[in-house]
Amino acid sequence: MRKTDPEHRMSTPTDPVKLTADLIRCPSVTPEEGGALVLLQGLLEEAGFTCTRVDRGGIANLYARWGDKGHERTFGFNGHTDVVPVGDEAAWTMPPFGAEEHDGVLYGRGATDMKSAVAAFAAAAIDFVRDTPPDGAIVLAITGDEEGDAQDGTLALLDWMYESGEQLTDCLVGEPTCPETMGEMIKIGRRGSMSAWFTVTGKQGHSAYPHRATNPLHAMARLMDGIASRELDKGTEHFDPSTLAVVNIDTGNPATNVIPAQTRATVNIRFNDCHTGNTLSDWLRAEAAHVDEGYGTTTEVKIKISGEAFLTPPGPLSDLVAAAVEAETGVTPELSTTGGTSDARFVKDHCPVVEFGLVGRTMHQVDECVPVEQIRQLKAVYARILAEYFA
Amino acid sequence: MRKTDPEHRMSTPTDPVKLTADLIRCPSVTPEEGGALVLLQGLLEEAGFTCTRVDRGGIANLYARWGDKGHERTFGFNGHTDVVPVGDEAAWTMPPFGAEEHDGVLYGRGATDMKSAVAAFAAAAIDFVRDTPPDGAIVLAITGDEEGDAQDGTLALLDWMYESGEQLTDCLVGEPTCPETMGEMIKIGRRGSMSAWFTVTGKQGHSAYPHRATNPLHAMARLMDGIASRELDKGTEHFDPSTLAVVNIDTGNPATNVIPAQTRATVNIRFNDCHTGNTLSDWLRAEAAHVDEGYGTTTEVKIKISGEAFLTPPGPLSDLVAAAVEAETGVTPELSTTGGTSDARFVKDHCPVVEFGLVGRTMHQVDECVPVEQIRQLKAVYARILAEYFA
Repeated sequence: MRKTDPEHRMSTPTDPVKLTADLIRCPSVTPEEGGALVLLQGLLEEAGFTCTRVDRGGIANLYARWGDKGHERTFGFNGHTDVVPVGDEAAWTMPPFGAEEHDGVLYGRGATDMKSAVAAFAAAAIDFVRDTPPDGAIVLAITGDEEGDAQDGTLALLDWMYESGEQLTDCLVGEPTCPETMGEMIKIGRRGSMSAWFTVTGKQGHSAYPHRATNPLHAMARLMDGIASRELDKGTEHFDPSTLAVVNIDTGNPATNVIPAQTRATVNIRFNDCHTGNTLSDWLRAEAAHVDEGYGTTTEVKIKISGEAFLTPPGPLSDLVAAAVEAETGVTPELSTTGGTSDARFVKDHCPVVEFGLVGRTMHQVDECVPVEQIRQLKAVYARILAEYFA
Repeated sequence: MRKTDPEHRMSTPTDPVKLTADLIRCPSVTPEEGGALVLLQGLLEEAGFTCTRVDRGGIANLYARWGDKGHERTFGFNGHTDVVPVGDEAAWTMPPFGAEEHDGVLYGRGATDMKSAVAAFAAAAIDFVRDTPPDGAIVLAITGDEEGDAQDGTLALLDWMYESGEQLTDCLVGEPTCPETMGEMIKIGRRGSMSAWFTVTGKQGHSAYPHRATNPLHAMARLMDGIASRELDKGTEHFDPSTLAVVNIDTGNPATNVIPAQTRATVNIRFNDCHTGNTLSDWLRAEAAHVDEGYGTTTEVKIKISGEAFLTPPGPLSDLVAAAVEAETGVTPELSTTGGTSDARFVKDHCPVVEFGLVGRTMHQVDECVPVEQIRQLKAVYARILAEYFA
């Protein structure tokens, strides 16, 4: 048993609610640092963390490590302090960067996504290394760009870690994961995400003489109906079925007597581990080529793969996190791979990664908010994870 | 045999080329009268025509009759003096209202569509009633709005004629009818024309959770593919097959992660006498309802029927016109129902109507022009029609 230090025993726990409020008051709309990482760096350095700013491409990122570099047990937390824009500020009933608390609920942009989780894991880590210094290392890898392009955010941190010999053995991303009830969901993977932009070109003409034109809209309707109607798969053990959504078709032709030369469409696909971005790209291009052959059109397909599908199969890390969640919330969490993408898609190339955070219902919305009790609960979950991990 | 009057025998023929040029110099872009009808009224009154301005809704129209009202043989000419806008004036190499003649070609807006035909039938009628006054009546019904909405143009003239007891026994519309060669085509009917505007409404959502949204674009793609793929008919004795063109789909959603709530499409149909505007409207609405049932969407369909299909079956009138065309041009004209719509769609409710005019190749284009020889040829055709009609 560790020797008890009277000074430690007496220490006041770090308040994650106050820290969340301080962070909300930093107007860190992507790509602005807004003072958030500077604030965290000060607190973490004071608590004995070695901090490095890993800025790239105008984005501020913070790497903070307590304990030895390259320790065989290095637990990492990953999160972001940047937030999405306020949107229609007039629609907010609370100041979006005011961090006002009413009836036990804290309001502001980033209240759930995800300044509260950053505050919770920073507070848990600070208290943990002070009260029960572990035989291991704890890393906080916090980025200023998760909501934007994310190319110079967690990716910059991981690149720098690779170059500097920094290594995590396991990682938890603190994104909101619970749909409705605190504790109900842990994410152990994510579907992949990609978008495709189709430009179908035919030949302009008068709508009274369609045989002299090549109508790109007829080809587009056939192409979009064909790909939207296809069942991509039936889902796998840990994944829902992949989905495809046509999200836009634009032509911009105001004249009823003109067949336009060109039309454009955008498609978004969320895919499971039955596919890769490349297999789906090949399929989309083949569908377009097939329609072009039938209609005499020429279709250009541009593709952006935002992230591949990945999975950290249920095992020691997810067991540990699930047990901590259940102990602190009384809810047995589901291990899920649903939802949008997150920086876990980058971390998964480095080490096993799971995600657990708050109820995400108000994220990106007007009057984004979080019950302060849930911030305290989240800190307790993170603290328990650290305790069990290093037990 | 009619007694020859030396004064008549010696009269100078009215020059249709000069009259066309004078009309081109009137800037009568719809809905502007531009001086064109005033000019014609002066000439026609001088030639003994009774003229009435039948203006309605800001549109000027001219009704000119020579001979007795209600005569059992009343031949009518219908045409318009309004023209479409100049468009990109910088692209013209000739002044669009300058009526310049170069190498036997007269340039200007309205040169083919259709100031030359108005000049040709006015000149033919003026000379005819002067040189060989017929036992019958000749009417020129000339509108200032054929290119616009056309609701207060020839329709206003026909309404006024009905109220005033004015009646034609046969009518010729002077629109350009020849695709490439002077004399090659007479129109004995026209396909109908209609447009339909579809607004498909679903339920907005995140593209990562398509099962929580109702994607209107998937319904739209199915609906447009379905109606575009349908063979409407195989054509009839006098008509080509009906055609349908999807001319626009617009959504305006820039976000790849959002399924939009709504999308819009426009469809144009040119239909033959297998259909009416109402049977096609019913079909479009039924297709939309069927797709809505499958997709959970709500589709609003707005329809505008520009004209129904009609036919003046081959008979005395078309025989007469065809013989005159062949005699003056040496070309045997085809009796056709192809092409866009014209005011014949209104006249056909009043009396048998056929259309014959110039080669329409440059109409509505930059540097619209007409060989002056073709204007003279057209006057000769119209003169021969009058001569044979009243022979």
